[in-house]
Amino acid sequence: MVKEHNKKAIILLSGGLDSTTVMAMAKHDGYDLYAMSFDYGQRHLYELEAAKSIARAYKVKTHLLVKTDLTGIGGSALTDAISVPKDRDMDGGGDEIPVTYVPARNTIFLSYALAWSEVLNAPDIFMGVNAIDYSGYPDCRPEYIHAFEQMANLATKATVEGAFKIRIHTPLIQMTKAEIIRNGLELGVDYGLTHSCYDPDSLGNACGRCDSCLLRKKGFAEAGVDDPTQYTQPGSRGPGFP
Amino acid sequence: MVKEHNKKAIILLSGGLDSTTVMAMAKHDGYDLYAMSFDYGQRHLYELEAAKSIARAYKVKTHLLVKTDLTGIGGSALTDAISVPKDRDMDGGGDEIPVTYVPARNTIFLSYALAWSEVLNAPDIFMGVNAIDYSGYPDCRPEYIHAFEQMANLATKATVEGAFKIRIHTPLIQMTKAEIIRNGLELGVDYGLTHSCYDPDSLGNACGRCDSCLLRKKGFAEAGVDDPTQYTQPGSRGPGFP
Repeated sequence: MVKEHNKKAIILLSGGLDSTTVMAMAKHDGYDLYAMSFDYGQRHLYELEAAKSIARAYKVKTHLLVKTDLTGIGGSALTDAISVPKDRDMDGGGDEIPVTYVPARNTIFLSYALAWSEVLNAPDIFMGVNAIDYSGYPDCRPEYIHAFEQMANLATKATVEGAFKIRIHTPLIQMTKAEIIRNGLELGVDYGLTHSCYDPDSLGNACGRCDSCLLRKKGFAEAGVDDPTQYTQPGSRGPGFP
Repeated sequence: MVKEHNKKAIILLSGGLDSTTVMAMAKHDGYDLYAMSFDYGQRHLYELEAAKSIARAYKVKTHLLVKTDLTGIGGSALTDAISVPKDRDMDGGGDEIPVTYVPARNTIFLSYALAWSEVLNAPDIFMGVNAIDYSGYPDCRPEYIHAFEQMANLATKATVEGAFKIRIHTPLIQMTKAEIIRNGLELGVDYGLTHSCYDPDSLGNACGRCDSCLLRKKGFAEAGVDDPTQYTQPGSRGPGFP
């Protein structure tokens, strides 16, 4: 593939399976990679360590870590002292929005990406949202992404002065988790680097029972490939833990 | 005025003249007030002290200060080591977007307000943007605000589940600065509490020469009322300062 001059992609990189696959896709498409991750007070900070390893592995030009505190706003099991639900039925994906939903999280993340896109002069923003094997979060749906893009093109100096039009790329949005994994493996993604669990143990092992773990396991099973994830062994968290 | 039960307003409060006037308007309309301010690495941190005093004066239910660092993203004279322009001609307002523009700032602020609105169950968000006597920032225009509202109503659990529709109130958007001041004075606003300057001296006195000071001075002059602002006196910053 011939690489276009100065083709920059901003990747919202959580350190999970989806955003890492998107990173591999943007790289394959010849973009220079600019990764952006958020420390927002999430209880699963292990994902940021994963994001750092992945950013290094993909030789990104910059990995910008934005620190912002969503715990003051609250309203989510991912930032507050609310239990992460376990063993939910993930086949009906999207029927009910669970307590792991973080209010307006993707809008906040995309807003920062919009600011960075203007400073970098980089109209292409990539995001690993998915509206098939997902938890039913409203800000993962195509109509939401489209509306954000419309708004973004009225919001900034670069877009208003005609320097460029923002494009939000969501290549996974209509894929099953199994399709995402198959695509990623073809592009050489090492899923052992990625972290999906909302509620890892103190060693960083995945719980295997939150929505995110269940969707990941289902994906690997349906793709017919081995899941490299380290899951907590029963008893390994010590007495009193499942 | 009869106060509706549980009518909550989120006010984006910078500590400046506009957002304070909006606060007075929301109070007059019978809302319980929830103020939100941002410490984003701005050089004019005095505005946050003003915001705190104003929040106290208006007896807000909560004043949420969100700390987030936009200096990592950069691209603005308000967060970076770039000089704030002085003595610009403010009569052609909007012809050129100056370096004090902070990339995607209003989108970032509104995104946090959207998150908080969901947690508080408060669909009414008030913001003091103005598209008449302003610096030409794209994210102060009615078409931008409208697009944000459209997006917001697809973004969150509360809006998607039909609990409420987000309304972004921008009562000042088509007013001149003089009209804003006259409205505020009628509602009893003490403009001595407010802070507008982008580049105050070490005592917090306004420079009198940045866009924000020039628009403020022009507003008070056109309204025909005294400006209570403390401006820097020539020589008061010490040798070498204007």
